[in-house]
Amino acid sequence: MADLRISEAKEAPVTPETLMRLMASRRDVRGNRFSDRPIDDAILRQILEAANAAPSVGFSQPWQFVIVKDAAKREAVYREFVHENEKAKKIFRTHALYPSLKLEGIRESYANIAVLYQKSSNAVLGQTTRKKTGEYSVVCAIQNLWLMARAYNIGIGWVSILRNKKVKKILGIGEEYKLVAYLTIGYVNEFAEEPELLTLGWETKKSLDEVVRWV
Amino acid sequence: MADLRISEAKEAPVTPETLMRLMASRRDVRGNRFSDRPIDDAILRQILEAANAAPSVGFSQPWQFVIVKDAAKREAVYREFVHENEKAKKIFRTHALYPSLKLEGIRESYANIAVLYQKSSNAVLGQTTRKKTGEYSVVCAIQNLWLMARAYNIGIGWVSILRNKKVKKILGIGEEYKLVAYLTIGYVNEFAEEPELLTLGWETKKSLDEVVRWV
Repeated sequence: MADLRISEAKEAPVTPETLMRLMASRRDVRGNRFSDRPIDDAILRQILEAANAAPSVGFSQPWQFVIVKDAAKREAVYREFVHENEKAKKIFRTHALYPSLKLEGIRESYANIAVLYQKSSNAVLGQTTRKKTGEYSVVCAIQNLWLMARAYNIGIGWVSILRNKKVKKILGIGEEYKLVAYLTIGYVNEFAEEPELLTLGWETKKSLDEVVRWV
Repeated sequence: MADLRISEAKEAPVTPETLMRLMASRRDVRGNRFSDRPIDDAILRQILEAANAAPSVGFSQPWQFVIVKDAAKREAVYREFVHENEKAKKIFRTHALYPSLKLEGIRESYANIAVLYQKSSNAVLGQTTRKKTGEYSVVCAIQNLWLMARAYNIGIGWVSILRNKKVKKILGIGEEYKLVAYLTIGYVNEFAEEPELLTLGWETKKSLDEVVRWV
Protein backbone atom coordinates (compact mmCIF):
# COMPACT_ATOMS: atom_id res chain seq x y z
CA MET A 1 0.00 0.00 0.00
CA ALA A 2 2.77 2.41 0.93
CA ASP A 3 4.65 1.58 -2.26
CA LEU A 4 1.58 2.22 -4.36
CA ARG A 5 1.37 5.70 -2.84
CA ILE A 6 4.97 6.45 -3.76
CA SER A 7 4.45 5.52 -7.37
CA GLU A 8 1.26 7.56 -7.45
CA ALA A 9 3.30 10.51 -6.20
CA LYS A 10 5.40 10.55 -9.42
CA GLU A 11 8.96 9.42 -8.82
CA ALA A 12 11.40 12.31 -8.48
CA PRO A 13 13.72 12.66 -11.50
CA VAL A 14 16.81 13.11 -9.28
CA THR A 15 17.99 10.79 -6.52
CA PRO A 16 18.53 12.38 -3.10
CA GLU A 17 22.22 11.34 -3.16
CA THR A 18 22.83 13.09 -6.49
CA LEU A 19 20.98 16.24 -5.42
CA MET A 20 22.99 16.34 -2.19
CA ARG A 21 26.23 16.17 -4.19
CA LEU A 22 25.07 19.12 -6.28
CA MET A 23 24.10 21.14 -3.19
CA ALA A 24 27.37 20.29 -1.44
CA SER A 25 29.44 21.40 -4.44
CA ARG A 26 27.69 24.78 -4.79
CA ARG A 27 29.96 27.66 -3.80
CA ASP A 28 29.69 31.41 -3.19
CA VAL A 29 32.12 32.51 -5.89
CA ARG A 30 34.36 35.55 -5.56
CA GLY A 31 36.19 37.51 -8.24
CA ASN A 32 39.46 35.63 -8.10
CA ARG A 33 37.72 32.44 -9.26
CA PHE A 34 35.65 33.71 -12.19
CA SER A 35 36.96 32.92 -15.67
CA ASP A 36 36.44 35.18 -18.70
CA ARG A 37 34.42 32.60 -20.63
CA PRO A 38 31.09 34.14 -21.76
CA ILE A 39 27.71 32.59 -20.94
CA ASP A 40 25.36 31.88 -23.85
CA ASP A 41 22.10 33.81 -23.56
CA ALA A 42 20.21 30.52 -23.97
CA ILE A 43 21.94 29.07 -20.91
CA LEU A 44 21.42 32.26 -18.90
CA ARG A 45 17.73 32.03 -19.76
CA GLN A 46 17.57 28.42 -18.54
CA ILE A 47 19.12 29.48 -15.24
CA LEU A 48 16.53 32.25 -14.94
CA GLU A 49 13.75 29.76 -15.78
CA ALA A 50 14.80 27.78 -12.72
CA ALA A 51 14.42 30.93 -10.62
CA ASN A 52 11.01 31.55 -12.18
CA ALA A 53 9.92 28.04 -11.11
CA ALA A 54 10.44 28.77 -7.40
CA PRO A 55 7.60 28.72 -4.87
CA SER A 56 6.01 32.06 -4.03
CA VAL A 57 3.43 33.26 -1.55
CA GLY A 58 -0.02 33.15 -3.18
CA PHE A 59 1.73 32.18 -6.46
CA SER A 60 2.55 35.89 -6.76
CA GLN A 61 5.98 35.34 -8.42
CA PRO A 62 7.06 38.76 -7.11
CA TRP A 63 10.59 38.63 -8.54
CA GLN A 64 12.41 40.71 -11.12
CA PHE A 65 15.90 39.99 -12.43
CA VAL A 66 17.98 42.83 -13.84
CA ILE A 67 20.90 41.50 -15.88
CA VAL A 68 23.73 44.03 -15.66
CA LYS A 69 26.47 43.77 -18.29
CA ASP A 70 27.28 47.48 -18.63
CA ALA A 71 30.86 48.12 -17.42
CA ALA A 72 30.23 51.67 -16.19
CA LYS A 73 27.27 50.62 -14.04
CA ARG A 74 29.27 47.73 -12.63
CA GLU A 75 32.16 50.04 -11.85
CA ALA A 76 29.76 52.32 -9.96
CA VAL A 77 28.42 49.37 -7.96
CA TYR A 78 32.00 48.30 -7.26
CA ARG A 79 32.81 51.77 -5.88
CA GLU A 80 29.75 51.49 -3.62
CA PHE A 81 31.10 48.12 -2.40
CA VAL A 82 34.53 49.61 -1.64
CA HIS A 83 32.88 52.45 0.29
CA GLU A 84 30.80 50.10 2.42
CA ASN A 85 33.63 47.64 2.90
CA GLU A 86 35.80 50.40 4.39
CA LYS A 87 33.20 50.65 7.14
CA ALA A 88 33.15 46.86 7.52
CA LYS A 89 36.96 46.81 7.84
CA LYS A 90 36.64 49.07 10.86
CA ILE A 91 34.03 46.78 12.42
CA PHE A 92 36.33 43.77 11.93
CA ARG A 93 39.53 45.64 12.80
CA THR A 94 40.51 43.03 15.39
CA HIS A 95 40.33 40.27 12.73
CA ALA A 96 43.68 40.26 10.92
CA LEU A 97 42.24 38.13 8.11
CA TYR A 98 39.43 40.50 7.08
CA PRO A 99 41.30 43.02 4.89
CA SER A 100 42.75 40.21 2.75
CA LEU A 101 39.37 38.59 2.01
CA LYS A 102 38.03 38.84 -1.55
CA LEU A 103 34.33 39.51 -0.96
CA GLU A 104 32.93 40.21 -4.43
CA GLY A 105 33.41 39.62 -8.15
CA ILE A 106 31.43 42.56 -9.53
CA ARG A 107 33.89 43.37 -12.33
CA GLU A 108 35.45 39.93 -12.92
CA SER A 109 32.18 38.02 -13.44
CA TYR A 110 30.40 37.67 -16.79
CA ALA A 111 27.38 39.64 -15.56
CA ASN A 112 25.73 40.93 -12.43
CA ILE A 113 22.11 40.21 -11.55
CA ALA A 114 20.14 42.58 -9.35
CA VAL A 115 17.29 40.57 -7.86
CA LEU A 116 14.26 42.64 -6.95
CA TYR A 117 11.09 42.16 -4.99
CA GLN A 118 8.15 43.79 -6.73
CA LYS A 119 5.72 45.20 -4.17
CA SER A 120 2.09 44.43 -4.91
CA SER A 121 -0.55 47.12 -4.82
CA ASN A 122 -3.24 44.48 -4.14
CA ALA A 123 -3.54 42.07 -1.23
CA VAL A 124 -1.63 38.83 -1.90
CA LEU A 125 -3.01 35.49 -0.71
CA GLY A 126 -0.95 34.25 2.24
CA GLN A 127 0.84 37.57 2.63
CA THR A 128 -1.84 39.31 4.70
CA THR A 129 -0.40 38.32 8.09
CA ARG A 130 3.27 38.36 7.13
CA LYS A 131 4.42 41.00 4.65
CA LYS A 132 7.96 39.57 4.52
CA THR A 133 6.85 36.39 2.77
CA GLY A 134 7.03 38.35 -0.49
CA GLU A 135 10.77 38.95 -0.10
CA TYR A 136 11.22 35.39 1.12
CA SER A 137 9.70 34.13 -2.14
CA VAL A 138 12.36 36.07 -4.02
CA VAL A 139 15.08 34.35 -1.98
CA CYS A 140 13.60 30.93 -2.88
CA ALA A 141 14.03 31.97 -6.52
CA ILE A 142 17.65 32.94 -5.86
CA GLN A 143 18.43 29.53 -4.39
CA ASN A 144 16.88 27.78 -7.42
CA LEU A 145 18.98 30.02 -9.68
CA TRP A 146 22.12 29.23 -7.68
CA LEU A 147 21.63 25.47 -7.91
CA MET A 148 20.76 25.55 -11.62
CA ALA A 149 23.87 27.63 -12.32
CA ARG A 150 25.92 24.96 -10.54
CA ALA A 151 24.31 22.29 -12.73
CA TYR A 152 25.73 24.24 -15.70
CA ASN A 153 29.14 24.48 -13.96
CA ILE A 154 28.53 28.21 -13.55
CA GLY A 155 29.30 30.06 -10.35
CA ILE A 156 27.25 32.60 -8.41
CA GLY A 157 28.42 35.11 -5.82
CA TRP A 158 26.06 37.02 -3.52
CA VAL A 159 27.48 40.47 -2.76
CA SER A 160 25.84 41.80 0.39
CA ILE A 161 28.13 44.69 1.32
CA LEU A 162 26.07 47.19 -0.70
CA ARG A 163 23.38 49.67 0.26
CA ASN A 164 20.04 48.96 -1.44
CA LYS A 165 19.27 52.58 -2.22
CA LYS A 166 22.64 53.27 -3.84
CA VAL A 167 22.44 50.20 -6.09
CA LYS A 168 18.87 51.00 -7.08
CA LYS A 169 19.91 54.53 -8.00
CA ILE A 170 22.85 53.33 -10.12
CA LEU A 171 20.56 50.93 -12.00
CA GLY A 172 17.60 53.30 -12.25
CA ILE A 173 15.22 51.00 -10.39
CA GLY A 174 11.86 52.44 -9.35
CA GLU A 175 10.26 52.87 -5.93
CA GLU A 176 7.94 49.89 -6.40
CA TYR A 177 10.91 47.52 -6.16
CA LYS A 178 13.10 46.47 -3.29
CA LEU A 179 16.59 45.11 -3.90
CA VAL A 180 16.80 41.69 -2.28
CA ALA A 181 20.19 40.57 -3.62
CA TYR A 182 23.02 41.59 -5.89
CA LEU A 183 24.52 38.53 -7.58
CA THR A 184 27.52 37.96 -9.81
CA ILE A 185 27.48 35.13 -12.35
CA GLY A 186 30.12 33.51 -14.50
CA TYR A 187 32.02 30.37 -15.39
CA VAL A 188 34.72 29.59 -12.88
CA ASN A 189 38.25 28.31 -13.06
CA GLU A 190 37.37 25.93 -10.27
CA PHE A 191 34.78 25.30 -7.60
CA ALA A 192 36.55 25.18 -4.24
CA GLU A 193 36.22 21.94 -2.29
CA GLU A 194 34.53 23.72 0.61
CA PRO A 195 33.39 27.24 1.58
CA GLU A 196 36.36 29.60 1.67
CA LEU A 197 35.47 30.97 5.12
CA LEU A 198 35.59 27.38 6.42
CA THR A 199 38.98 26.71 4.80
CA LEU A 200 40.35 29.95 6.23
CA GLY A 201 39.04 29.13 9.70
CA TRP A 202 36.72 32.16 9.87
CA GLU A 203 33.77 29.95 10.87
CA THR A 204 33.26 26.25 11.63
CA LYS A 205 30.67 23.98 10.02
CA LYS A 206 27.63 23.41 12.22
CA SER A 207 26.54 19.83 12.77
CA LEU A 208 22.94 18.79 12.25
CA ASP A 209 22.51 18.33 15.99
CA GLU A 210 23.46 21.96 16.53
CA VAL A 211 20.69 23.24 14.25
CA VAL A 212 17.81 20.80 14.88
CA ARG A 213 15.52 20.40 17.90
CA TRP A 214 12.59 18.02 18.32
CA VAL A 215 9.44 18.93 20.28
CA MET B 1 40.89 25.95 -23.62
CA ALA B 2 37.31 26.60 -22.66
CA ASP B 3 36.65 22.86 -22.43
CA LEU B 4 39.63 22.39 -20.17
CA ARG B 5 38.21 25.01 -17.84
CA ILE B 6 34.89 23.18 -17.65
CA SER B 7 36.51 19.93 -16.69
CA GLU B 8 38.63 21.75 -14.11
CA ALA B 9 35.43 23.12 -12.62
CA LYS B 10 34.26 19.61 -11.59
CA GLU B 11 31.32 18.45 -13.67
CA ALA B 12 28.00 18.88 -11.89
CA PRO B 13 26.48 15.57 -10.74
CA VAL B 14 23.01 16.53 -12.08
CA THR B 15 22.14 17.66 -15.60
CA PRO B 16 20.30 20.98 -15.90
CA GLU B 17 17.36 19.22 -17.61
CA THR B 18 16.93 16.76 -14.73
CA LEU B 19 17.22 19.46 -12.09
CA MET B 20 14.63 21.55 -13.93
CA ARG B 21 12.22 18.60 -13.91
CA LEU B 22 12.70 18.28 -10.15
CA MET B 23 12.12 22.01 -9.59
CA ALA B 24 9.08 22.04 -11.87
CA SER B 25 7.49 19.10 -10.03
CA ARG B 26 7.94 20.63 -6.54
CA ARG B 27 4.60 21.69 -5.04
CA ASP B 28 3.36 23.67 -2.03
CA VAL B 29 1.38 20.85 -0.41
CA ARG B 30 -1.82 21.41 1.53
CA GLY B 31 -3.58 19.16 4.04
CA ASN B 32 -5.88 17.41 1.61
CA ARG B 33 -2.89 15.91 -0.22
CA PHE B 34 -0.79 14.60 2.68
CA SER B 35 -0.90 10.84 3.28
CA ASP B 36 -0.55 9.23 6.70
CA ARG B 37 2.65 7.37 5.83
CA PRO B 38 5.35 8.15 8.44
CA ILE B 39 8.79 9.53 7.50
CA ASP B 40 11.82 7.61 8.76
CA ASP B 41 14.01 9.74 11.03
CA ALA B 42 17.01 8.89 8.82
CA ILE B 43 15.26 10.38 5.78
CA LEU B 44 14.12 13.43 7.74
CA ARG B 45 17.73 13.95 8.78
CA GLN B 46 18.91 13.75 5.14
CA ILE B 47 16.38 16.42 4.20
CA LEU B 48 17.65 18.61 7.04
CA GLU B 49 21.25 17.99 5.93
CA ALA B 50 20.31 19.55 2.58
CA ALA B 51 19.04 22.62 4.43
CA ASN B 52 22.25 22.74 6.46
CA ALA B 53 24.27 22.80 3.19
CA ALA B 54 22.69 26.06 2.03
CA PRO B 55 24.69 29.25 1.48
CA SER B 56 24.73 31.75 4.33
CA VAL B 57 26.05 35.24 4.84
CA GLY B 58 29.57 35.05 6.28
CA PHE B 59 29.09 31.24 6.53
CA SER B 60 27.08 32.02 9.67
CA GLN B 61 24.56 29.15 9.16
CA PRO B 62 22.06 31.11 11.27
CA TRP B 63 19.24 28.55 11.00
CA GLN B 64 17.44 26.42 13.55
CA PHE B 65 14.84 23.77 12.71
CA VAL B 66 12.26 22.82 15.32
CA ILE B 67 10.56 19.54 14.44
CA VAL B 68 7.04 19.61 15.86
CA LYS B 69 5.26 16.26 16.20
CA ASP B 70 3.27 16.99 19.37
CA ALA B 71 -0.46 16.97 18.55
CA ALA B 72 -1.47 19.53 21.20
CA LYS B 73 1.09 22.08 19.99
CA ARG B 74 -0.01 21.54 16.39
CA GLU B 75 -3.63 21.99 17.37
CA ALA B 76 -2.71 25.29 19.03
CA VAL B 77 -0.89 26.44 15.89
CA TYR B 78 -3.90 25.36 13.82
CA ARG B 79 -6.21 27.49 16.00
CA GLU B 80 -3.87 30.46 15.43
CA PHE B 81 -4.13 29.82 11.67
CA VAL B 82 -7.95 29.76 11.84
CA HIS B 83 -7.93 33.04 13.77
CA GLU B 84 -5.68 34.77 11.26
CA ASN B 85 -7.47 33.29 8.26
CA GLU B 86 -10.77 34.77 9.47
CA LYS B 87 -9.14 38.19 9.03
CA ALA B 88 -7.82 37.16 5.60
CA LYS B 89 -11.30 36.03 4.54
CA LYS B 90 -12.53 39.57 5.18
CA ILE B 91 -9.69 41.03 3.10
CA PHE B 92 -10.57 38.70 0.21
CA ARG B 93 -14.36 38.94 0.68
CA THR B 94 -14.89 39.89 -2.96
CA HIS B 95 -13.11 36.67 -4.09
CA ALA B 96 -15.71 33.89 -4.04
CA LEU B 97 -12.99 31.25 -4.26
CA TYR B 98 -11.07 32.23 -1.11
CA PRO B 99 -13.18 30.57 1.62
CA SER B 100 -12.98 27.20 -0.16
CA LEU B 101 -9.17 27.21 -0.43
CA LYS B 102 -7.25 24.72 1.71
CA LEU B 103 -4.28 26.80 2.86
CA GLU B 104 -2.47 24.58 5.36
CA GLY B 105 -1.84 20.98 6.45
CA ILE B 106 -0.79 21.57 10.04
CA ARG B 107 -2.66 18.56 11.46
CA GLU B 108 -2.69 16.26 8.41
CA SER B 109 1.07 16.30 7.75
CA TYR B 110 3.57 13.94 9.36
CA ALA B 111 5.31 16.79 11.20
CA ASN B 112 5.61 20.55 11.26
CA ILE B 113 8.94 22.36 11.08
CA ALA B 114 9.36 25.82 12.58
CA VAL B 115 12.33 27.41 10.83
CA LEU B 116 14.11 30.03 12.89
CA TYR B 117 16.70 32.69 12.31
CA GLN B 118 19.17 32.85 15.19
CA LYS B 119 20.26 36.43 15.80
CA SER B 120 23.99 36.83 16.30
CA SER B 121 25.40 38.83 19.17
CA ASN B 122 28.60 39.45 17.21
CA ALA B 123 29.09 41.20 13.88
CA VAL B 124 28.69 38.78 10.95
CA LEU B 125 30.87 39.11 7.85
CA GLY B 126 28.78 40.44 4.97
CA GLN B 127 25.87 41.34 7.23
CA THR B 128 27.19 44.70 8.42
CA THR B 129 25.47 46.73 5.67
CA ARG B 130 22.35 44.60 5.32
CA LYS B 131 20.93 42.99 8.45
CA LYS B 132 18.29 41.09 6.48
CA THR B 133 20.84 38.84 4.79
CA GLY B 134 20.71 36.68 7.91
CA GLU B 135 17.03 35.88 7.40
CA TYR B 136 17.63 35.49 3.67
CA SER B 137 20.21 32.78 4.42
CA VAL B 138 17.54 30.89 6.34
CA VAL B 139 15.23 31.05 3.30
CA CYS B 140 18.01 29.59 1.10
CA ALA B 141 18.08 26.67 3.54
CA ILE B 142 14.30 26.28 3.26
CA GLN B 143 14.50 26.03 -0.53
CA ASN B 144 17.23 23.36 -0.30
CA LEU B 145 15.03 21.45 2.16
CA TRP B 146 12.02 21.76 -0.14
CA LEU B 147 13.88 20.39 -3.16
CA MET B 148 15.48 17.55 -1.20
CA ALA B 149 12.09 16.56 0.19
CA ARG B 150 10.78 16.41 -3.38
CA ALA B 151 13.71 14.14 -4.32
CA TYR B 152 12.39 11.76 -1.61
CA ASN B 153 8.82 12.12 -2.98
CA ILE B 154 7.95 14.01 0.19
CA GLY B 155 5.84 17.16 0.16
CA ILE B 156 6.33 20.48 1.93
CA GLY B 157 3.78 23.18 2.63
CA TRP B 158 4.69 26.70 3.78
CA VAL B 159 1.99 28.09 6.08
CA SER B 160 2.27 31.85 6.15
CA ILE B 161 -1.04 32.87 7.72
CA LEU B 162 0.36 32.76 11.25
CA ARG B 163 1.67 35.46 13.58
CA ASN B 164 5.34 34.95 14.49
CA LYS B 165 4.91 35.83 18.14
CA LYS B 166 1.98 33.49 18.69
CA VAL B 167 3.79 30.52 17.12
CA LYS B 168 6.96 31.24 19.08
CA LYS B 169 4.94 31.35 22.30
CA ILE B 170 3.21 28.02 21.55
CA LEU B 171 6.57 26.37 20.87
CA GLY B 172 8.46 28.07 23.71
CA ILE B 173 11.01 29.71 21.43
CA GLY B 174 13.28 32.34 22.96
CA GLU B 175 13.79 36.02 22.15
CA GLU B 176 17.06 35.38 20.34
CA TYR B 177 15.18 33.68 17.50
CA LYS B 178 12.93 34.98 14.78
CA LEU B 179 10.40 32.69 13.09
CA VAL B 180 11.09 32.79 9.36
CA ALA B 181 8.74 30.02 8.23
CA TYR B 182 6.33 27.39 9.48
CA LEU B 183 6.47 24.30 7.27
CA THR B 184 4.47 21.10 7.12
CA ILE B 185 6.11 17.91 5.84
CA GLY B 186 4.80 14.51 4.82
CA TYR B 187 4.41 11.95 2.08
CA VAL B 188 1.68 12.85 -0.35
CA ASN B 189 -1.01 10.95 -2.18
CA GLU B 190 0.01 12.83 -5.30
CA PHE B 191 1.97 15.84 -6.46
CA ALA B 192 -0.35 18.04 -8.49
CA GLU B 193 0.67 18.68 -12.10
CA GLU B 194 0.89 22.42 -11.50
CA PRO B 195 0.44 24.93 -8.65
CA GLU B 196 -3.12 24.77 -7.33
CA LEU B 197 -3.60 28.56 -7.52
CA LEU B 198 -2.71 28.35 -11.22
CA THR B 199 -5.16 25.48 -11.84
CA LEU B 200 -7.90 27.38 -10.02
CA GLY B 201 -7.22 30.55 -11.98
CA TRP B 202 -6.24 32.63 -8.92
CA GLU B 203 -3.01 33.75 -10.62
CA THR B 204 -1.39 33.27 -14.02
CA LYS B 205 2.14 32.01 -14.65
CA LYS B 206 4.60 34.79 -15.45
CA SER B 207 6.75 34.39 -18.52
CA LEU B 208 10.49 34.87 -18.37
CA ASP B 209 10.18 38.09 -20.36
CA GLU B 210 7.88 39.50 -17.68
CA VAL B 211 10.45 39.00 -14.93
CA VAL B 212 13.79 39.71 -16.65
CA ARG B 213 15.30 43.00 -17.84
CA TRP B 214 18.71 43.57 -19.42
CA VAL B 215 20.81 46.70 -18.79
